[in-house]
Amino acid sequence: MFALDPIATVSNDRHDLRDDDWGAVVSRITLNEDLSEELFKGIDEFSHVEVIFVFHRKLSDKPVSATRHPRNNQEWPRIGLLAQRSAHHPNPLGLCTAKIKGLQGRTLIVQGLDAVDGTPVLDIKPVFQEFLPKSSRQPNWVSELLKNYW
Amino acid sequence: MFALDPIATVSNDRHDLRDDDWGAVVSRITLNEDLSEELFKGIDEFSHVEVIFVFHRKLSDKPVSATRHPRNNQEWPRIGLLAQRSAHHPNPLGLCTAKIKGLQGRTLIVQGLDAVDGTPVLDIKPVFQEFLPKSSRQPNWVSELLKNYW
Repeated sequence: MFALDPIATVSNDRHDLRDDDWGAVVSRITLNEDLSEELFKGIDEFSHVEVIFVFHRKLSDKPVSATRHPRNNQEWPRIGLLAQRSAHHPNPLGLCTAKIKGLQGRTLIVQGLDAVDGTPVLDIKPVFQEFLPKSSRQPNWVSELLKNYW
Repeated sequence: MFALDPIATVSNDRHDLRDDDWGAVVSRITLNEDLSEELFKGIDEFSHVEVIFVFHRKLSDKPVSATRHPRNNQEWPRIGLLAQRSAHHPNPLGLCTAKIKGLQGRTLIVQGLDAVDGTPVLDIKPVFQEFLPKSSRQPNWVSELLKNYW
């Protein structure tokens, strides 16, 4: 077992857990007081970051089965929780690529982070182009599910 | 503080911590015995997964400063640890997109995962095309650093 302390906290105007409309959301990711703001030095030379966070408002919702219809929609296949990106994973970790809008001291400002206000952040990594897949394949239900996500 | 149990373990033929030549490495990610292999059902409809793991062989190396030259190379700028993807972050989390090669029961076979043999895995997520940046920007040192990475 690994014990991890959050390094930062998200603040934004999203207080509800609804699924869609994340594209325009602007969030402030503020480093803990005990961490140096120098940790962010140079991060604004990148356009995007990946943010690993905790679904802290889902901690009491333990997955009850290994498979599920995405969003409980029976029109989509019943598949394993690890073949989905929902909060219903064995570990309640979120992961999102967000656009960097600015850096103000210990606060990184991003757009399109799908995390509610108060979310604890475990790690932040700059997006390296060489780490992105050149092309990718996915089943059809994904694009249907994400129609109004961004 | 969040206590997280690994869900799976990496096995491959990489036992050394050297930085480069990850592209051809094939890894087996095997779910813990106490987890259902159904968690992976349908994941092989995707071409890629993102893997969140622990740099378990770096746990005793606590970062001593907030900034560093990438790979200690003075020719690259001295920048914050969170503006780099090395293991020297406040939390020792790794994150890599890998190509799915196959699924065998509770074992997912991937290529291009930059994690050594025995690495504990905390989460696995399918890559959704709609989550990838359309275009991205990065400083020049990144491509130099990654010249022999894949």
